[in-house]
Amino acid sequence: MKYPGLIAVAVSGGAALALLPMAAGAAQAPADIVAAAPRAAWIPIPADSLIVMDLSPDRGGKARRIVIQLMPTPFAAGHVANIKALARHHWWDGTSVNRVQDNYVVQWGDATEKKPLPADLVKVPDSDYVVPATALPSEARPAPAAGSSPEGQAAIAGTITPSAPDGWHERDSYAPWVGIHAGWPIASDRESAWPVHCYGMVGVGRDLSPDTGTGAELYVVIGQAPRQLDRNIALVGRIIAGIEHLSSLPRGTGALGFYKTAGERTPIQSVRLASELPAATRPRFEYLSDHSQDFARYVAARANRKDSFYSRPAGAIDICNIVPPVRVVSKR
Amino acid sequence: MKYPGLIAVAVSGGAALALLPMAAGAAQAPADIVAAAPRAAWIPIPADSLIVMDLSPDRGGKARRIVIQLMPTPFAAGHVANIKALARHHWWDGTSVNRVQDNYVVQWGDATEKKPLPADLVKVPDSDYVVPATALPSEARPAPAAGSSPEGQAAIAGTITPSAPDGWHERDSYAPWVGIHAGWPIASDRESAWPVHCYGMVGVGRDLSPDTGTGAELYVVIGQAPRQLDRNIALVGRIIAGIEHLSSLPRGTGALGFYKTAGERTPIQSVRLASELPAATRPRFEYLSDHSQDFARYVAARANRKDSFYSRPAGAIDICNIVPPVRVVSKR
Repeated sequence: MKYPGLIAVAVSGGAALALLPMAAGAAQAPADIVAAAPRAAWIPIPADSLIVMDLSPDRGGKARRIVIQLMPTPFAAGHVANIKALARHHWWDGTSVNRVQDNYVVQWGDATEKKPLPADLVKVPDSDYVVPATALPSEARPAPAAGSSPEGQAAIAGTITPSAPDGWHERDSYAPWVGIHAGWPIASDRESAWPVHCYGMVGVGRDLSPDTGTGAELYVVIGQAPRQLDRNIALVGRIIAGIEHLSSLPRGTGALGFYKTAGERTPIQSVRLASELPAATRPRFEYLSDHSQDFARYVAARANRKDSFYSRPAGAIDICNIVPPVRVVSKR
Repeated sequence: MKYPGLIAVAVSGGAALALLPMAAGAAQAPADIVAAAPRAAWIPIPADSLIVMDLSPDRGGKARRIVIQLMPTPFAAGHVANIKALARHHWWDGTSVNRVQDNYVVQWGDATEKKPLPADLVKVPDSDYVVPATALPSEARPAPAAGSSPEGQAAIAGTITPSAPDGWHERDSYAPWVGIHAGWPIASDRESAWPVHCYGMVGVGRDLSPDTGTGAELYVVIGQAPRQLDRNIALVGRIIAGIEHLSSLPRGTGALGFYKTAGERTPIQSVRLASELPAATRPRFEYLSDHSQDFARYVAARANRKDSFYSRPAGAIDICNIVPPVRVVSKR
């Protein structure tokens, strides 16, 4: 078997965290650290923040289920409320995946853009793209790293600091500070904070005017983090299971990756809040707490790979490579 | 039509650079700058550095052609020689795509790992992962930005400097300097330089020992830049056309994204050097010169999006978002 290998998928349904035997003397791989984390290090994700989207079955008749975790307050509160309302109205049933642009986004919603929206949606201003830094708990608020200037070397905000024994750093191009807060990749300056466009993050499509996103048209990032979108469009969640059903769809042949013909679109059978599904079939997920020592070790190990394959640890990590692992809650 | 939109695909076959009407008063979008670049700004890619890989046709009978540009000297010279030899021997014909791991890599070669290799391959040491900084032309060698320390704010090396009128910066997490050299994303410290793992970059799979890559098993990045692989494995090129035929393949269900059964693999019909194809069917590509003013404007525009969709230009750019555009040489 040839490598590159042994990497943990940041957004995963749990089963994708492959374990291979460790070479003697090699350090633990990130996936090993995640697999060994005690149950107490995992935090359940509330059912009313999970959206379950079922595409039509694939050619072989296999089900294609996607699970989206919506962001908690204080982020994107207006859009999240609209999305929950749309799910309660079963509004997406019968709509479709309309756009797949390689190394960019997959987008879904009503291809006709004529389907009436529920009356209870609220108009969300673009001020909702960011929150005041003071809206975050004090321990998650950015503070300058010792000896650094606001425009200088960035520190990981929140509970993760670059003081791990191995030493590593994060110099973010796009923001003075980045970090993980309550399971989410967040960027910040002194005044405000905002979620980051990483692989798997879900946002609200809009027209040219910034307040035109209703939540009815959503996209997910399937390529190199398009960070230029940060603060220009609303992020509302991330896909925590089944992203492969979207990222492996045929690329659109029209402008911007939209499909040219209706027949190329993938039908959406249903979209539901997990809390509205029968308890027996309700999906349950948990994420590795960013307050846990296990997550701190996971980040340090990803920043300084010393497991058997690696000979030159990077001593660095990008915020989009440490989005907290998610797994299915085991039945017992 | 809902956005995010208007982004130029960095690795593209030319046709993907969509043009939409500009709103009055809005700045030029990156794709507009590329489309308007004069012919003199484009540099032809030599046919003997192009590898043409034809997968078996898709379910609908449509051809699936992928074109890989191999890196020029001084980078990866040993591996590139081996890959050209393998192509001349038609070694990949009848092999397959064996691994697709979401947000990571697609990998191809001989699934049995038993097919005899040509006798003329050379063993390449891992010292080949980097080149001495002095091997680059003096104008492409990294120099500290004014007022910065070696560990501080990074400058774009080479011909692209952060002195564009708009102002923008690049703070790379992984290397003191990054930049574009002769069409390639390169990182460097004072002593050495090495290519960067961006979306679309092609590398040489290997076993755990660093000198075990033969070039017969190759991978391409299909997700967030796995920069921890830089200097740990050999990069040899990038896909400049048809990456969607690999990135949209079904994800592998086994460990590390390998397919569990032979039937899931995608057969490779043939792999040839473009220079060995008949002139009439030989693909011809060119890239936007990183020495051109057009490329400098393209980078500045990507770092500071001011076209109609954007209200908050980022003032920053990641090296993996400015890999130079490539297009098919037009017939006339």
